[in-house]
Amino acid sequence: MIRIGILGCGTVASGVIKLLAMHGESVRVQLGEEVEVAKVLARTPAKALALGLTEAQICSDFGEILNDPTISVVIELIGGTDAAYTYISEALKAGKHVVTANKDLIATHFQELNDLAAAHSVRFAFEASVGGGIPLVDSIRRTLAANRIQSMFGILNGTTNYILTKMTQNGLSYAEALAEAQRLGFAEANPASDVGGGDAARKIAILSTLAFHSPVSYYDVYHEGIAGITPTDIRFADQSGFVFKLLGIARQHENACEAYVRPALVPKRHPLASVSDSFNAVFITGDAVGEVMLYGRGAGSLPTASSVVGDLMNVVRAGRGHTAAALSCYENLPVMDILDSENVYYVRLSVQDRPMVLARVAGVFGKHGVSLASLVQESRGKDSAELLLFTHRASERELSAAMADLRNLDAVHEGAYWICMEDDA
Amino acid sequence: MIRIGILGCGTVASGVIKLLAMHGESVRVQLGEEVEVAKVLARTPAKALALGLTEAQICSDFGEILNDPTISVVIELIGGTDAAYTYISEALKAGKHVVTANKDLIATHFQELNDLAAAHSVRFAFEASVGGGIPLVDSIRRTLAANRIQSMFGILNGTTNYILTKMTQNGLSYAEALAEAQRLGFAEANPASDVGGGDAARKIAILSTLAFHSPVSYYDVYHEGIAGITPTDIRFADQSGFVFKLLGIARQHENACEAYVRPALVPKRHPLASVSDSFNAVFITGDAVGEVMLYGRGAGSLPTASSVVGDLMNVVRAGRGHTAAALSCYENLPVMDILDSENVYYVRLSVQDRPMVLARVAGVFGKHGVSLASLVQESRGKDSAELLLFTHRASERELSAAMADLRNLDAVHEGAYWICMEDDA
Repeated sequence: MIRIGILGCGTVASGVIKLLAMHGESVRVQLGEEVEVAKVLARTPAKALALGLTEAQICSDFGEILNDPTISVVIELIGGTDAAYTYISEALKAGKHVVTANKDLIATHFQELNDLAAAHSVRFAFEASVGGGIPLVDSIRRTLAANRIQSMFGILNGTTNYILTKMTQNGLSYAEALAEAQRLGFAEANPASDVGGGDAARKIAILSTLAFHSPVSYYDVYHEGIAGITPTDIRFADQSGFVFKLLGIARQHENACEAYVRPALVPKRHPLASVSDSFNAVFITGDAVGEVMLYGRGAGSLPTASSVVGDLMNVVRAGRGHTAAALSCYENLPVMDILDSENVYYVRLSVQDRPMVLARVAGVFGKHGVSLASLVQESRGKDSAELLLFTHRASERELSAAMADLRNLDAVHEGAYWICMEDDA
Repeated sequence: MIRIGILGCGTVASGVIKLLAMHGESVRVQLGEEVEVAKVLARTPAKALALGLTEAQICSDFGEILNDPTISVVIELIGGTDAAYTYISEALKAGKHVVTANKDLIATHFQELNDLAAAHSVRFAFEASVGGGIPLVDSIRRTLAANRIQSMFGILNGTTNYILTKMTQNGLSYAEALAEAQRLGFAEANPASDVGGGDAARKIAILSTLAFHSPVSYYDVYHEGIAGITPTDIRFADQSGFVFKLLGIARQHENACEAYVRPALVPKRHPLASVSDSFNAVFITGDAVGEVMLYGRGAGSLPTASSVVGDLMNVVRAGRGHTAAALSCYENLPVMDILDSENVYYVRLSVQDRPMVLARVAGVFGKHGVSLASLVQESRGKDSAELLLFTHRASERELSAAMADLRNLDAVHEGAYWICMEDDA
């Protein structure tokens, strides 16, 4: 008999309890032992009762779980970095395995908690912290472990992917698409963490930490959201053979790594381009495996519970024992300044439509060493026009300096730029 | 120090030796121990020497590996079911972990070898036996273990996917595309196992065995190849919103499962439709996780070696110990007769272009209870025409009976039919 304690009683916890009830017999046969939900830490007992739990299973004091020696696995589904951090640390120190779906915590405290688990010969599993039910964490840590992972491009946030899909397919503005997403439950009332890129930043931080064996924290990850993307951008990308996606991008170099979240133009024939609606996917390039893409539902009660219960089964199977500390951050690569990254860029400039503006704009790019690959000028009536252009590969430092200069020209009203994913990326 | 014995010296073995040389240090750090290639069993010592092995590392007698107590892991890369079966069995009985890329063997002897490993408390790993470097086996056995897998649709053979991609994109006939694939090394001189579906059948047998916890052998898997697909089929599928793919299809039912390989029309907006060239992908639906797709290179020296070395690292990490026998075939579902399966079908009939033929054809379908969803008649000049039609969902038994009757009509010259993947499949 495996007795587990579950912390929290929200969406994912209810999925875990439901899934264990649905497939209790299959879990029992696969593990050779029954899994019993011994205790659920619930702030609101009524919610726990509504899930079919008995009063005896519900507790409001973590000590009841921590100090119960018959509970061997703690599943943390509270989220955040405060109580969750304390509970997980104490559970590991008490010799209990821990499974968590907590991206906030893993994106900031991975190394410390992983080392703590190793020091106490217990397992610490967090497949559900990135990409919901998609087998990402285990694939990177186990199946692809013989690779040097060169790059990862991830659609890691379902809300923004839903919004960008609607902007692309139905011609909606950002505000209209966001409102629709909120109406249908794909975006929260306060969507800041999703649309601003913070949620995806946590996830690419976790993936980078594992893939590069380096401590990449959420705080190291530059991120930009999608609110500045206009229907003009979407249309011009489409005409040029691209679709907009919010990407978590990570690359490994000799002595450093990159990790950031940016809206990007993805070539239509790239596998990521057809990842629509609220689906997530990560495109990974390893030096042995070549290109791999893992696709699925990045959120939701049962998809996330699928990873949590999978982890639970795997920590039980693995049992207590020495965890190679080497799974930790032995490469220790620093995260590069975003200004040192290089990409191809798409730039949109609103300019006065009068002689010499184009020459002056081109001159500014040239002065900063940014070479242009193509440029289209579209009149907006009266004396206003938009310049839509692609650069050749350039450094962010040069491009952002050119954009700063351009915004100072009185002939330029507005300027925005996005990454353009190269076909061989 | 982990000393390993490698059986075979072909494409995958050379990839494994190369990869261990490339990333020896990273493997050492991750395992906390160095991996040493102790012995390579090579029929042609010259090939092994060309890989940089020393004479002392090369042997021609399996006994030198089997009887060396310092060798703890055997990597079998000979292929086939004869010598490989004997070597693997003996290695497991001798208490050595075994890693293999051998799809022929796993697709016919999984249960027996898995049980043998469990009986001797050693690990038996075969990630590379399906889908080259794609993390398929571990994802199904571990991360998705809490799901009831409802269905799998897999593009599991790179040769046929390359041929179908060229037929679709460049309008080539099957013979032309096959010749091009052979010229470029994507198809072997004798392509029978690839184009006939036998290779994909072995892979969907393995995936079904794992996903359904049931002994699905290659011999249980009905398979059809792609040679009968004509440019007319490709063009009509395109006009109707589909692309042709050779699919391994598996579904779990209450008391049985389906597993077969068939050419199929895949809706263009389905994620599998954009899996082109020699790439592989498997689209999995689980009752908790929903839809997951795993995509990558299904063959090749280094991609396959990526999975082999990943397995090697995982068996070393796991170490000796009790392997839950439950990972074996406890569900024991039988494989359904293909005639009991149900699908939507696309049918092409060459008919005499004269009055009443259409009525007679429709009458035959009606007599067998096959309901037609749409039908197009295309004249082929003189008195010849082609009927291209989609059925509603029908059983294979009814459809094949209808086709047999139709082929007996003197007005019907030829008839072929393919599966049409439903959008919600």
